[in-house]
Amino acid sequence: MEHHVYEAEHHAFRELCKEFLAREAVPHNDEWEKAGIVDRDVWRKAGAVGLLGMDVDERHGGGGQRDFRFNAVLVEEIVAAGASGLGFGLHNDVVAPYLTDLTTEDQQNRWLPGFCSGDIVTAIAMSEPAAGSDLAGIRTTAVRDGDSWVLNGQKTFITNGELADLVIVVAKTDPSRGAHGISLFGVERGTPGFSRGRRLEKVGLKANDTAELFFDDCRIPSDHLIGQENQGFYHLMANLPRERLGIAVAAVAAAEHILSVTLDYAKSRAAFGRPIGKFQHNRFLLAELDTEVTIARTFLNACIVEQNAGRLSVTDAAKAKWWTTELQNKVADRCLQLHGGYGFMLEYPVAKAWLNSRVQTIYGGTTEIMKEIIGRSLGL
Amino acid sequence: MEHHVYEAEHHAFRELCKEFLAREAVPHNDEWEKAGIVDRDVWRKAGAVGLLGMDVDERHGGGGQRDFRFNAVLVEEIVAAGASGLGFGLHNDVVAPYLTDLTTEDQQNRWLPGFCSGDIVTAIAMSEPAAGSDLAGIRTTAVRDGDSWVLNGQKTFITNGELADLVIVVAKTDPSRGAHGISLFGVERGTPGFSRGRRLEKVGLKANDTAELFFDDCRIPSDHLIGQENQGFYHLMANLPRERLGIAVAAVAAAEHILSVTLDYAKSRAAFGRPIGKFQHNRFLLAELDTEVTIARTFLNACIVEQNAGRLSVTDAAKAKWWTTELQNKVADRCLQLHGGYGFMLEYPVAKAWLNSRVQTIYGGTTEIMKEIIGRSLGL
Amino acid sequence: MEHHVYEAEHHAFRELCKEFLAREAVPHNDEWEKAGIVDRDVWRKAGAVGLLGMDVDERHGGGGQRDFRFNAVLVEEIVAAGASGLGFGLHNDVVAPYLTDLTTEDQQNRWLPGFCSGDIVTAIAMSEPAAGSDLAGIRTTAVRDGDSWVLNGQKTFITNGELADLVIVVAKTDPSRGAHGISLFGVERGTPGFSRGRRLEKVGLKANDTAELFFDDCRIPSDHLIGQENQGFYHLMANLPRERLGIAVAAVAAAEHILSVTLDYAKSRAAFGRPIGKFQHNRFLLAELDTEVTIARTFLNACIVEQNAGRLSVTDAAKAKWWTTELQNKVADRCLQLHGGYGFMLEYPVAKAWLNSRVQTIYGGTTEIMKEIIGRSLGL
Amino acid sequence: MEHHVYEAEHHAFRELCKEFLAREAVPHNDEWEKAGIVDRDVWRKAGAVGLLGMDVDERHGGGGQRDFRFNAVLVEEIVAAGASGLGFGLHNDVVAPYLTDLTTEDQQNRWLPGFCSGDIVTAIAMSEPAAGSDLAGIRTTAVRDGDSWVLNGQKTFITNGELADLVIVVAKTDPSRGAHGISLFGVERGTPGFSRGRRLEKVGLKANDTAELFFDDCRIPSDHLIGQENQGFYHLMANLPRERLGIAVAAVAAAEHILSVTLDYAKSRAAFGRPIGKFQHNRFLLAELDTEVTIARTFLNACIVEQNAGRLSVTDAAKAKWWTTELQNKVADRCLQLHGGYGFMLEYPVAKAWLNSRVQTIYGGTTEIMKEIIGRSLGL
Ligand SMILES: Cc1cc2nc3c(=O)[nH]c(=O)nc-3n(C[C@H](O)[C@H](O)[C@H](O)COP(=O)(O)OP(=O)(O)OC[C@H]3O[C@@H](n4cnc5c(N)ncnc54)[C@H](O)[C@@H]3O)c2cc1C
Ligand SMILES: Cc1cc2nc3c(=O)[nH]c(=O)nc-3n(C[C@H](O)[C@H](O)[C@H](O)COP(=O)(O)OP(=O)(O)OC[C@H]3O[C@@H](n4cnc5c(N)ncnc54)[C@H](O)[C@@H]3O)c2cc1C
Ligand SMILES: Cc1cc2nc3c(=O)[nH]c(=O)nc-3n(C[C@H](O)[C@H](O)[C@H](O)COP(=O)(O)OP(=O)(O)OC[C@H]3O[C@@H](n4cnc5c(N)ncnc54)[C@H](O)[C@@H]3O)c2cc1C
Ligand SMILES: Cc1cc2nc3c(=O)[nH]c(=O)nc-3n(C[C@H](O)[C@H](O)[C@H](O)COP(=O)(O)OP(=O)(O)OC[C@H]3O[C@@H](n4cnc5c(N)ncnc54)[C@H](O)[C@@H]3O)c2cc1C
Repeated sequence: MEHHVYEAEHHAFRELCKEFLAREAVPHNDEWEKAGIVDRDVWRKAGAVGLLGMDVDERHGGGGQRDFRFNAVLVEEIVAAGASGLGFGLHNDVVAPYLTDLTTEDQQNRWLPGFCSGDIVTAIAMSEPAAGSDLAGIRTTAVRDGDSWVLNGQKTFITNGELADLVIVVAKTDPSRGAHGISLFGVERGTPGFSRGRRLEKVGLKANDTAELFFDDCRIPSDHLIGQENQGFYHLMANLPRERLGIAVAAVAAAEHILSVTLDYAKSRAAFGRPIGKFQHNRFLLAELDTEVTIARTFLNACIVEQNAGRLSVTDAAKAKWWTTELQNKVADRCLQLHGGYGFMLEYPVAKAWLNSRVQTIYGGTTEIMKEIIGRSLGL
Repeated sequence: MEHHVYEAEHHAFRELCKEFLAREAVPHNDEWEKAGIVDRDVWRKAGAVGLLGMDVDERHGGGGQRDFRFNAVLVEEIVAAGASGLGFGLHNDVVAPYLTDLTTEDQQNRWLPGFCSGDIVTAIAMSEPAAGSDLAGIRTTAVRDGDSWVLNGQKTFITNGELADLVIVVAKTDPSRGAHGISLFGVERGTPGFSRGRRLEKVGLKANDTAELFFDDCRIPSDHLIGQENQGFYHLMANLPRERLGIAVAAVAAAEHILSVTLDYAKSRAAFGRPIGKFQHNRFLLAELDTEVTIARTFLNACIVEQNAGRLSVTDAAKAKWWTTELQNKVADRCLQLHGGYGFMLEYPVAKAWLNSRVQTIYGGTTEIMKEIIGRSLGL
Repeated sequence: MEHHVYEAEHHAFRELCKEFLAREAVPHNDEWEKAGIVDRDVWRKAGAVGLLGMDVDERHGGGGQRDFRFNAVLVEEIVAAGASGLGFGLHNDVVAPYLTDLTTEDQQNRWLPGFCSGDIVTAIAMSEPAAGSDLAGIRTTAVRDGDSWVLNGQKTFITNGELADLVIVVAKTDPSRGAHGISLFGVERGTPGFSRGRRLEKVGLKANDTAELFFDDCRIPSDHLIGQENQGFYHLMANLPRERLGIAVAAVAAAEHILSVTLDYAKSRAAFGRPIGKFQHNRFLLAELDTEVTIARTFLNACIVEQNAGRLSVTDAAKAKWWTTELQNKVADRCLQLHGGYGFMLEYPVAKAWLNSRVQTIYGGTTEIMKEIIGRSLGL
Repeated sequence: MEHHVYEAEHHAFRELCKEFLAREAVPHNDEWEKAGIVDRDVWRKAGAVGLLGMDVDERHGGGGQRDFRFNAVLVEEIVAAGASGLGFGLHNDVVAPYLTDLTTEDQQNRWLPGFCSGDIVTAIAMSEPAAGSDLAGIRTTAVRDGDSWVLNGQKTFITNGELADLVIVVAKTDPSRGAHGISLFGVERGTPGFSRGRRLEKVGLKANDTAELFFDDCRIPSDHLIGQENQGFYHLMANLPRERLGIAVAAVAAAEHILSVTLDYAKSRAAFGRPIGKFQHNRFLLAELDTEVTIARTFLNACIVEQNAGRLSVTDAAKAKWWTTELQNKVADRCLQLHGGYGFMLEYPVAKAWLNSRVQTIYGGTTEIMKEIIGRSLGL
């Protein structure tokens, strides 16, 4: 099926992304994976060519394009390049709207230019050791003290955790009120009482710096509150569909990519005198995966159109999130199998694709939490 | 997700269909199921209100709308009404294009008015006892004899087989040339040598007259050849995507319908003090089915748009066909289970929905044959 | 894998069953299916040759063999013969232990001879319109009144419901105590106030008389209480493993049977010039089914050994029940597909096998209830 | 279900294994994983306590017990200890029978004492870069030259490849005869022309030295031929069931282990105020996995009994291999998901279990090849 959502300007942007990644990311990827973190420099380079803050206003140095298709194109190309360490998706798709939509003019002036130039790498810290799915169960607190907020608590699994210059921290400002007592704060690198813990050793996404963060009487100016006091939960809810759509974009892109790599493999690898893809079991399997990837792409594109129209519902984002990420895992798993012993060797892209895919059904809200959301929308 | 393919005129047509079925089909359905065949009269009534030949030219009494959305609406409503005996889908979606696109002016004048009025019920006879998936393996022959063709052979599993006044029969005109020696013929009721066999007892679709046909030195005028001599296989290939799309329409409609019926059931049936739909396993299951049905609908609509634009590819039609019919079966099966013992009772709609769904992955090309087609399109 | 549980006496009994069924059941099956009930006579004939009450004491006319393997053999042969109307499994596997283990000498003398001769067909009535899975939620009551119990309530989905001469009825004797206030009663045909409702029209098991029962001030002698007053729930719990094992026996037998029929079909049916079973997709599918059926048989046999040793746990019976019945459904579904259009025709055994299989995951405790039981045994 | 195959001597042996692994393997495992290879010393220590060559004759230093249950116990304990680098299974389960059953007295005297003491680590080299599943397609050749055989070719994916002191090499001795022209050779460390290539970087099994081997005019004495000339293919076929059984043992042990670890996790990890295992979806999932692991264990034990009786068929070994390894992967995948974000962290055992499981459906014959074998046994 021809897909009709991308237009000329997106194709041009795609070329830009491709070229940038080929030059600035692919050659360093192995080294980044070994280091467990990308070079900070690549962020500034990305900012310079316009890969950060595509939908931030031009006056702050952004692209000024409120069109999620640009975000999607960038994520697709990062996935295709295998540059999984680049947390641009988190920065552009997840963090950006908090900074553009919930901030004061002062906050925008302080943070957005660096956001767009790559001088300010961002992260968002919701999860804690004892509370992931259950966001309302977090324990980090922020207590008002004169002109400051004092934060105490611990976060974990934070993408871009070490590189981040600005972290949006979710904390309880009124612990007695559960979800109604949560607020968001911008915490900058270097704030006393804010420290980083270990870099976590992961199954995949080797080049990304997923980290623990600690807040120990960490005092921040009162105007680093982002959005309304005690409305943090609702700010998060409002932005989660966009985060989930971003994950779905990565999922479909990864599935398409692995499938295409595997198709080539299945045509060239021979056993018993013919290409392994010609064995009917494998042919049918590839036909099945190709069908599901086509269908996922169609649905994803429809969701992107909805997002651009300001209509993407929480439920549809949840559907897109769980279904495409489960599919990505299925595709990766079946494609690894099609590679035989080679699929188990890290030098084969399918192996890394399989490793990276595994977290997708977990972060941004697990498949189980997505089904809760959808189930509730059905009145159950 | 809002679906944006239907417009005002389709909504109006939908009302017409709903109203017609409620009045003319639903009250008779039990009796038709017992009889194993619908009343011929309902065809004429359907013709009278414009449910037959929506895309046939107005000069032949048709609707003059080359817009598959009308076909889709009718099929959806037949499914929702549970009037599975009405072979209008076969008539409108499958047979119509042969009669409009491959016929001579004379043939059109002879057959199309009756086609649209309901006086001529149609069928298409490809399958034989020894050749279903393997169309090129049919044995029915048509031999030229002066101004006639003489047909010999047997067909089976023919939808509308008993009611049909006009059957498009697929026969070998040059058996030595395999797929290149196949032609199509219009055989009319009453032609000597053309007889009907048993009405077949089926698992579901109880009210439809699936039948065997026999051709025993059946002589038809030479101008009942439809399309080009020896090009029958290609004529069929050209029209199969539309047939498969029609089956996919029924599949998605059925899945939506059963799901909605079951959702209601799951909210009202209680066990252990609460609605069974509130048990998390069931809530997740319904969330999963709802997700997949939403995704199927999005893909189906995209295919309908492609079809209307004359662009629906053989591969996409195959994808839509197998995926939506397998989904329909999954939905029906899971929904039956959710009904507990009641799901096994014929008086519950879910039971019949389950029975009817089972043939969908078989006729119009089995799931396996669809995967062959898709696999081949991938170069495997 | 060779299976080593059956010994010479079971093989001999199997021959007896086969011969009986071929003579007394198979020739009547179509007629029974049309009637929706078997002929009462076949019960007496079965009793005469020793197919009823194999583990009832010889002094009551039974076989005197406390060996579930005989029960298993009989169920296997009924399944293989397609004589699904014969409710011997319910009688022998489910009802028998209540009558042999919970009864007084008087009750045994009254009921067991007829049980073994076939003069007393039995049923057990737990389920009600509003309470199936949730047995403790039943509403039928039994109130002590002098030397009688007076029953009021309604039962549904009762196997052998019309033929039954003796029904074990589950009723609340102390409604305030939930599961602790349930008792069992033997209600005989002809008791005033006991009537039968409709024979239910079902998806499959066409020849079995599943029925509704009504108790309207139905007065029975006080010594028709079976087991301890208010201990009915525990009596049921104690006997459900055996019921579930019986269902698992039928499931594995059915799966083996359909698979073997389909294997033959797949070898003889040709398409595209070769047996359809030779296409790799089908070969792999059959290999998969054959593997799972082998594994199911091994597990089932191990459970039968446990049952004979008096050790079959509630959890293992639940595991056997859900897993083998889900497998049976999968096998039936995949085998139907392998039959192509013929699979949808009732004259093909696979069609009926598919229809009959569908209830197996529902009665005797649904798959969901089995998972509850197992989950609880894991401490969840 | 109680499992009755292990007896007192196996329990004692299990304690020995447990104690050995806790002392000699577990403390070194991290370091071995980093190194990509275990310490050679651990082999000698294992030999010293009787963990190598349990079924080799006592006169050669072996255990003298032809009882595969000892092999199973050792593999189970290695899996439970997470000491996946220890290639004892390959040595004991796969290589041993070649050395005990196909060898001359001289060969036995030369190799078996070291085999049992741990001085001679072994490997078996079938796979080549261009031939894995298709063993008959290998290209390594062995040409007779006087009193020597001269080997040329390349092997890949060889377990214990670097440590191995003795490698059983599969080579073509009569390339014109396909499977009928294959022979086995014992190639010792240090033989000129025998070199090792890279240590391969793998998805899992990090501590095992999977390697490439090169044979470049590698000359070995003629009496290093193992078994009959040109009968190598049949020798392999005869021993593959035992290899596959060994893999199935590891699969079931791993599944049991991960499941039990995850059950504990699901009881202690809380979200939304209760243990995550108490959510019905998770409870049902764990019930499902527990059922399938129980069933797998029952089947595996039955296969071990068959193996000990000399009756394990090629088909049953294939069934056990594919089914248990696919199950292991399912269990690992679902259990990782149950761990949420922690499942993606390498410090959690479930993460490594997931990584290690992935190769199990590939080596020793892929799932697809197993289905070919089973399919053929069905006459397809
Ligand atoms: C690589 C990586 C990057 C991440 N990046 C970020 C980040 O940048 N910022 C951030 O804030 N967080 C981040 N996360 C954290 C992530 O969002 C959480 O891991 C995720 O939300 C799940 O939470 P958890 O790990 O605490 O699992 P838990 O909530 O403990 O869940 C454990 C299991 O229980 C299930 N479960 C939970 N509740 C229910 C229920 N009601 N019913 C049924 N099942 C249930 C879950 O689905 C899961 O299977 C990241 C995680 C990873 C692994
Ligand atoms: C209710 C009903 C209505 C129908 N209506 C019509 C109609 O109106 N007109 C008409 O012409 N026909 C009709 N059919 C016939 C239908 O199109 C055929 O049944 C269908 O195409 C399958 O053919 P078959 O039954 O001969 O199965 P077969 O072709 O014998 O197939 C048997 C099995 O083998 C599989 N198989 C076949 N080839 C391959 C392969 N290469 N690789 C792997 N697997 C393979 C199939 O998928 C199937 O599972 C109808 C059928 C039914 C049941
Ligand atoms: C052919 C046939 C023969 C039968 N024979 C007999 C007989 O001889 N005697 C007799 O007493 N009964 C008989 N039954 C009844 C049978 O035992 C019940 O149908 C069965 O126990 C399910 O009960 P239900 O139909 O009320 O379904 P419900 O209990 O209403 O269940 C509806 C759905 O909800 C699910 N559900 C229920 N509780 C939960 C939960 N806690 N968590 C998640 N899901 C849940 C169920 O699994 C099911 O999917 C028969 C039924 C049939 C169809
Ligand atoms: C960690 C590890 C350890 C190993 N240890 C050893 C060892 O000690 N000694 C040794 O000799 N080998 C070893 N192997 C190799 C292993 O046995 C092979 O990888 C395996 O047999 C598959 O071969 P292949 O990798 O060449 O895949 P291929 O044969 O190329 O197969 C690729 C894909 O095609 C499929 N395929 C192949 N033929 C068919 C068919 N007819 N129909 C359908 N699908 C088909 C396969 O199932 C697979 O999915 C090891 C491998 C690994 C990864």
